[in-house]
Amino acid sequence: MTSKHERLASRLPDVAGNGLVDRRALLGRGMLFAGATAAGIGSSLTGAAAEALPVDPWSMEPGAPIPPYGVPAKYESKVVRTLTNPNHEPRTSNARTPHHLLDGTITPNGLHFVVARTGFPDIDPSKHRLAIHGLVKQPLVFDLDALARYPKVTRINFVECGGNSAPLYNKDPVQANVQAIHGLVSCSEWTGVRLSTLLEETGIDPKAKWLLAEGADGPSMNRSIPIAKALDDAMIALYQNGERINPAQGYPMRLLVPGYEGNMNSGNGRIAKVMVSADGGKSWAQAALDAPVLSKALTRFRMPWRWDGQPVVLQSRAWDEAGNVQPTRAEMFAERGEPKVNLPVTAFPMGHMNVITSWAADNKGEVKHVYG
Amino acid sequence: MTSKHERLASRLPDVAGNGLVDRRALLGRGMLFAGATAAGIGSSLTGAAAEALPVDPWSMEPGAPIPPYGVPAKYESKVVRTLTNPNHEPRTSNARTPHHLLDGTITPNGLHFVVARTGFPDIDPSKHRLAIHGLVKQPLVFDLDALARYPKVTRINFVECGGNSAPLYNKDPVQANVQAIHGLVSCSEWTGVRLSTLLEETGIDPKAKWLLAEGADGPSMNRSIPIAKALDDAMIALYQNGERINPAQGYPMRLLVPGYEGNMNSGNGRIAKVMVSADGGKSWAQAALDAPVLSKALTRFRMPWRWDGQPVVLQSRAWDEAGNVQPTRAEMFAERGEPKVNLPVTAFPMGHMNVITSWAADNKGEVKHVYG
Repeated sequence: MTSKHERLASRLPDVAGNGLVDRRALLGRGMLFAGATAAGIGSSLTGAAAEALPVDPWSMEPGAPIPPYGVPAKYESKVVRTLTNPNHEPRTSNARTPHHLLDGTITPNGLHFVVARTGFPDIDPSKHRLAIHGLVKQPLVFDLDALARYPKVTRINFVECGGNSAPLYNKDPVQANVQAIHGLVSCSEWTGVRLSTLLEETGIDPKAKWLLAEGADGPSMNRSIPIAKALDDAMIALYQNGERINPAQGYPMRLLVPGYEGNMNSGNGRIAKVMVSADGGKSWAQAALDAPVLSKALTRFRMPWRWDGQPVVLQSRAWDEAGNVQPTRAEMFAERGEPKVNLPVTAFPMGHMNVITSWAADNKGEVKHVYG
Repeated sequence: MTSKHERLASRLPDVAGNGLVDRRALLGRGMLFAGATAAGIGSSLTGAAAEALPVDPWSMEPGAPIPPYGVPAKYESKVVRTLTNPNHEPRTSNARTPHHLLDGTITPNGLHFVVARTGFPDIDPSKHRLAIHGLVKQPLVFDLDALARYPKVTRINFVECGGNSAPLYNKDPVQANVQAIHGLVSCSEWTGVRLSTLLEETGIDPKAKWLLAEGADGPSMNRSIPIAKALDDAMIALYQNGERINPAQGYPMRLLVPGYEGNMNSGNGRIAKVMVSADGGKSWAQAALDAPVLSKALTRFRMPWRWDGQPVVLQSRAWDEAGNVQPTRAEMFAERGEPKVNLPVTAFPMGHMNVITSWAADNKGEVKHVYG
């Protein structure tokens, strides 16, 4: 059948090429069909048939016991991170978030991306310590009990690897899905103690301009960040989405530097708007943003679209509240230089790759990664 | 040692009895110690000692492999739901959220509370259907694929059992912790299709004033809700905190009626303010609220406090944006009648128990549930 949403949509003019419909169609009553084909949606039935719907076996038997800690349904066993090093060889392991199988903005802890040099360490929280020393007035050591007694803050923030989306550096479009291309970014509700609170406690020598954070994992991973950023919104996070941090995310405490990738670019304030194109960038229309739109947090956008079954190229482009705009691939390479060769997917030299991604759908609905 | 936060706090006047400090002390620089005792926090060390800190074993060996789906650290094995029916006998099972071990506002899916009459059903998502029939113009059946093609929305909302906090009905204060008393409320980011979208698709006979929602579990649990509420903000939820709904929360789809308890009271808009008392309600001071403060969502409040080691009675009291205020126990029972007897904890007759809870701490720091 043709749905009422489709009939409504068919009476509304396009706001951009190839069937993009005004985002206000998503708001309140009179919302529009936003799926990918024009076939019927719900199946109609007569009232009598509704009364006689078959009763499934799970409606005729007692259920399973409630466990102390629930796990996803067995039918969701494919909703997992892809692993680049499943046999745990002595090299870097990447675990990528399956964004194409998720919705909303929060990434479940079990699906948060990981980049680990030697796996994740088995840290005993009763013995672990955070030491702050160097150009401070009073070096201090904090255990978890000590940190629990400072004022805490809660914020929803993304974490992103500097190498996320790096496959877009390749000369030819890598044929891979969203998880493989963009899976090194995740978003959580983090709760912890502001780093500024602890640095006030130690006092800072005015000569100190940078801070070196060092992990307790085997390779002692470390990272330098400006003191100004440390005093701004950096946090010693203790909780992730309500519970203690996942072991592969830094349990029992981790430095969170909102908006900073590994290489310290990207991530400025809130998303101001997202524009969507269904004709490879020739025309654009504004998408709806799911509220609340938070600073340095993933923002879900939605766009009503009626597809006529013809080939299309889908793109999206984001602006932040400071006016920064996501570049096209051509704009980025005009600055950085064009890639001349194809590289193995693990060897992209360029971090902070945030160019517009283009997805082509043919008239059978087959989707391909293309350069727009 | 005495922390700088404590020294700062000691110079600030109280804003309410027994050591409550102005909430603005939590904001920005100059934040104050908010813990429970006046002992030292960080441990001091000399610069030389900092360089010579012991190296723990997990810093000298490779870590564990990254799993496709991560689980909490083994040290967190006590952070679980308490079960009222662990042997899965043929009666109701309650699983309660351990709020005292969590922080932030999101409840992890594995720790969301459950009230189940016969455990949770094993529903095959490829066969499950939502049927809407009765006083509609066109009865319709929707499977998961059909629902995925409608416009979706994402919202952070709490879910609460009508029986949450019911132990406060008892004549004498039940000696139990926060999990046992208030553990039947949880908060998630939910993503799904507005029920109004589907009801527009079926059309509604103007004679229809109520809707009966029936589950696919063994006992066919059902609930009637007003059509006006169904058209307002009710949702057929498909995702919980980013991933598919947990099996004990309604996988693969559930009706979400924001702000409605089982008995349909409580849950109006946003929290406007929370006042805290450390002297059993004689004096009050305003707590800080973690942003964003969302409609019909759990809201984390924080209060700076310096305790002088003397006995105290701690209370909090919330106001919503419509001006509704959490009642004292005396105010509630003036309306509903005083309980005359003590009842088994499973047999409280009164739903929607939202009176102020009082926690007494003695001079050893032992905490007891009391009536204020």
